[in-house]
Amino acid sequence: MNIAIVGAGNVAWHVAQGLQATGNAVTAVYSRTLTQASELTNLLPGAVAKADLDFRDVATDVILIAVPDAAIFSVANQLKITPGSIVAHTSGSQPISVLGSIDGADTGVFYPLQTFSKQAPVNLQQVPILVEGSTEQATQKLEQLAQSISTKVEHVTSEKRKQLHLAAVFACNFTNHLLGISQELLQKADLTKDLLQPLIQETITKAATHNPFTVQTGPAIRGDKNVIEDHLQLLENNPLLQSIYQQLTQSIQEKKLS
Amino acid sequence: MNIAIVGAGNVAWHVAQGLQATGNAVTAVYSRTLTQASELTNLLPGAVAKADLDFRDVATDVILIAVPDAAIFSVANQLKITPGSIVAHTSGSQPISVLGSIDGADTGVFYPLQTFSKQAPVNLQQVPILVEGSTEQATQKLEQLAQSISTKVEHVTSEKRKQLHLAAVFACNFTNHLLGISQELLQKADLTKDLLQPLIQETITKAATHNPFTVQTGPAIRGDKNVIEDHLQLLENNPLLQSIYQQLTQSIQEKKLS
Repeated sequence: MNIAIVGAGNVAWHVAQGLQATGNAVTAVYSRTLTQASELTNLLPGAVAKADLDFRDVATDVILIAVPDAAIFSVANQLKITPGSIVAHTSGSQPISVLGSIDGADTGVFYPLQTFSKQAPVNLQQVPILVEGSTEQATQKLEQLAQSISTKVEHVTSEKRKQLHLAAVFACNFTNHLLGISQELLQKADLTKDLLQPLIQETITKAATHNPFTVQTGPAIRGDKNVIEDHLQLLENNPLLQSIYQQLTQSIQEKKLS
Repeated sequence: MNIAIVGAGNVAWHVAQGLQATGNAVTAVYSRTLTQASELTNLLPGAVAKADLDFRDVATDVILIAVPDAAIFSVANQLKITPGSIVAHTSGSQPISVLGSIDGADTGVFYPLQTFSKQAPVNLQQVPILVEGSTEQATQKLEQLAQSISTKVEHVTSEKRKQLHLAAVFACNFTNHLLGISQELLQKADLTKDLLQPLIQETITKAATHNPFTVQTGPAIRGDKNVIEDHLQLLENNPLLQSIYQQLTQSIQEKKLS
């Protein structure tokens, strides 16, 4: 398929190259400056760098909008397209409706569920891609496009994607923050963070193959009041952290009862 | 060295076999019943199964107490030993002082920092072992023993081990619980938990090589109030989870400011 990409950031960077490598043609890349767009088109033979949103002069089966969430609506509003193109955004947290109604185009979502940075290579084959279309035809076409770069393609509605995003906040954003708190505690005790690494990896591996609630360990699930009291005392200079400790402990204990 | 082991649970199981495999001799294993002790001594040529705590009839450079935290004090109290032995427990959360003072023995801690289950093989070489002794000599001997099975041996005091344990609660126990919450949310939305697995693994990998606070992503760090409001609404039937979400969000935002 012929694909135009709006954006030259981390997602655009990997998706554009992934699509080109699997037999699709990236025909144009837009960024706010030609220089930024060219950095990516330099890697994509045949692609045109653009600093305007008029795509009527290039072939576009699909136009992918890979820009920050807050900019999607405004970009979609300014697009000039050849009728019959599909316009899809790549955001996990935004509904399909943020694109509004675009004259002559079906709309959709093409969401690669991974964090990207330009420096780090990504095996897109293993990255889940969640698609949604405003019409049956758009959904099918986006699925077909996703299947050309990934083996893990799912059709997920905006409503379900919102639930997925909430689950990802718990599993990734909050987990990352807890790992940060843990490293800070180790640092204060003058201990290397590497010490906990094998245990962290084992925790994740086990959670991937079991229901985490059934393999929960630690003072909360054991109801070990002395250890919990000791820990709260160690945190006495940080009331917010104390409160987070208490509530997570309570949540673990309620899961045991339920 | 000649080692006797009190306990035949998960830790005893792996540590005993690891010690035997690296040229030490496990001379005895105690459990409350001979049958349980024999299950382990059957795998350890030369080891005697015991259902009493009198170790005066076997050679013991070190006696390792690998029993539940609550039983350590009582076990240590009942031990009958050959003077000159070192008595060490294997617990992460208990201070060396829980062993009390044992006539004729130095005391210590020999703590393998990993979760063990009998079924799952463990590469002890990669498991950090934290040791502490009541005397310089005991510390050295326990370090030497630990180095025979692991490349990651550290001398850590009881005070620091307590801090480490607190850090492990955040990084492992609480993280595991968040992964459980996440899986439950996915299940409610009829989505497979495998979807988030690549993102979770990437989160952990990144946190191992960066300061997690500097690579934080998600609505909290972006200050995305609309998404946060949406998420809190999705959790409206679970006030505890709402509160955990709010406090972790606040903690992420305070880290950004600090």
